[in-house]
Amino acid sequence: MNKHVVLLPGDGIGKEVMESARLVLEAVAERNGHHFTFEEKLIGGAAIDEMGDPLPRETVEAAEKADAVLLGAVGGPSWDHLPGSGRPEQGLLGIRKQLGLFANLRPVKGFRQLLHASPLKKEVVEGSDLLIVRELTGGLYFGEPQERSEDGEGVVDTLSYSRKEIERIVEQGFESARKRRKQLTSVDKANVLESSRMWREIVEEKRADYPDVKVDHMLVDAAAMKLVTDPTYFDVVVTENMFGDILSDEASVLTGSLGLLPSASLREDGTGLYEPVHGSAPDIAGEDKANPLAMILSAAMMLKHSFHMEKEAEHVEKAVQEVLDAGYHTADLSVVNGTELGCTDLTRKVIEQITSED
Amino acid sequence: MNKHVVLLPGDGIGKEVMESARLVLEAVAERNGHHFTFEEKLIGGAAIDEMGDPLPRETVEAAEKADAVLLGAVGGPSWDHLPGSGRPEQGLLGIRKQLGLFANLRPVKGFRQLLHASPLKKEVVEGSDLLIVRELTGGLYFGEPQERSEDGEGVVDTLSYSRKEIERIVEQGFESARKRRKQLTSVDKANVLESSRMWREIVEEKRADYPDVKVDHMLVDAAAMKLVTDPTYFDVVVTENMFGDILSDEASVLTGSLGLLPSASLREDGTGLYEPVHGSAPDIAGEDKANPLAMILSAAMMLKHSFHMEKEAEHVEKAVQEVLDAGYHTADLSVVNGTELGCTDLTRKVIEQITSED
Ligand SMILES: CC(C)[C@H](C(=O)O)[C@@H](O)C(=O)O
Ligand SMILES: CC(C)[C@H](C(=O)O)[C@@H](O)C(=O)O
Repeated sequence: MNKHVVLLPGDGIGKEVMESARLVLEAVAERNGHHFTFEEKLIGGAAIDEMGDPLPRETVEAAEKADAVLLGAVGGPSWDHLPGSGRPEQGLLGIRKQLGLFANLRPVKGFRQLLHASPLKKEVVEGSDLLIVRELTGGLYFGEPQERSEDGEGVVDTLSYSRKEIERIVEQGFESARKRRKQLTSVDKANVLESSRMWREIVEEKRADYPDVKVDHMLVDAAAMKLVTDPTYFDVVVTENMFGDILSDEASVLTGSLGLLPSASLREDGTGLYEPVHGSAPDIAGEDKANPLAMILSAAMMLKHSFHMEKEAEHVEKAVQEVLDAGYHTADLSVVNGTELGCTDLTRKVIEQITSED
Repeated sequence: MNKHVVLLPGDGIGKEVMESARLVLEAVAERNGHHFTFEEKLIGGAAIDEMGDPLPRETVEAAEKADAVLLGAVGGPSWDHLPGSGRPEQGLLGIRKQLGLFANLRPVKGFRQLLHASPLKKEVVEGSDLLIVRELTGGLYFGEPQERSEDGEGVVDTLSYSRKEIERIVEQGFESARKRRKQLTSVDKANVLESSRMWREIVEEKRADYPDVKVDHMLVDAAAMKLVTDPTYFDVVVTENMFGDILSDEASVLTGSLGLLPSASLREDGTGLYEPVHGSAPDIAGEDKANPLAMILSAAMMLKHSFHMEKEAEHVEKAVQEVLDAGYHTADLSVVNGTELGCTDLTRKVIEQITSED
């Protein structure tokens, strides 16, 4: 298959880990007779520096024409003094909205080698394997009005959703659950918010279409507790944008594997943007110390969700697992009796696995 | 001193633990020459059953005239079928709003005897002692509009704050920090919300008045992570209503002491409502199995915050600590080599300590 991928390395270690993902994808293409073309564009701080805009129009245009987009990371102290609307994160929020990437998939799985780095007791966290499906283009993030009153004495943000926006993300939650352990937890605050009451109604409507999926409703405060006390309870969690932001970050630190977590942000037609959960780590940028595995696993999510290359995606995931099994890791991970490598060398190990797999 | 306290036992175990708190307060009064009068009123499910309203007007009127209010717990499966506006929780939301209880103080401290019950590793959680100061009468909980569109295709909730509402809760945060370890973490989502940007500005304005307090700003998603990975980082956290709801519940499970956590909801004049963090536990209601300690510690918070009886409050806290040190506990707590007692007997142990202290 021919696929065109837009690469948005962004800032900090984004550039290094993007190079790793590109090399891995080339190895996958070669091995499986695919042809991937790559086009690099600016976003975030790098785009501010070169073009005065965290999301240049040509970046959006290129992304719109691509089969999928990979993003490294945005942000860093050099842009912290800028006002809200001109900051690197606006590039991220902007591209999600402009491409219509309404479904954010955040899998959280503990790699055996890293479980010891979890803040949770082994018996609590062991076996955790959950997926948070977060609505990404609605709610408090984009609702209007969002403004101060004229006299500056009041301020308002708006949590708004259309029925259609809730329906499509709830469907995504059910579809994801169907492909996994068939248990969907819908998280809301229905005892307080009208939007949550509508959300709950829509989940109840949709469940008839997914009789094979077990559904429960949980209040967001209860979910924030249960993620810590009983993470193995969860299979798929579906929730609105802000709750999803908070809960997916909370979930990301449970297994000690934050440096390895990928994410996907999907559109209805299957196009998607894939990025690691970790940040731009400006303190180690350019030193060949970055951990490329979350970016590589994000590329694997792309193979699966946008290109329907399930087998190729599994190859990449297996290669990462085998490299960890062999004890190889970057400096950010503490692996017992492991071998520490730089970003380039660790990437090479992953590629060797992919090339040699059968 | 003469003080008049309104008791709102509410539902489930609320009645039992309220009786414990009353007995403890009588012991405190006797020992210190105070005179407390008590008046019991209905709230929540109990009020729905007797008066068809989760917050009868006479409850609000009595609470308004009281020096302080104690609340047990509200809710239970008998009222789960009711529509949103008629449910037990509405009693709680209503009394907070009608009494103007804008500041919710949620201390989280680990009792040594219970640390082993924490989901976190000992080395992560040991030494945690934090206070969440949550705004309680504004934001998404009470903003207007909160409604469906006429055609039912859209829904909106509103996060609104006035400058004054933010100022007074931020001041409460600074005041609380000043009385503790002098470190204030203000939590917001300033990279997305206009209300958070105003919140951050106000924190920056106020810090000049509290030069002895160290301040930092943290995004809510980062705070949700840090509570799990590094809870000892925090002293006082100040945040808006919904973020506070989520983070304070997340924090409440960290130390294994959920059954012992009290809370205070304060008005500007010092009047307050005090309630345990735990729920109404309908499954064990009426069996003399309820853990009265969180309710008793809530009464201690009342002594301190509403009656300025610091010494008396400390006596109660010390009595609870000594009862735990002696190994006494209810069935909900697993204490190594402890002695399990019912609610009545455990309360008696606390009272014995208070009476015998010098
Ligand atoms: C950078 C920020 C605006 C963003 C968000 O809140 O969505 C980030 O936290 C995320 O979760 O991707
Ligand atoms: C019962 C509910 C409305 C309430 C809230 O969200 O404030 C509760 O969760 C709390 O934190 O006291």
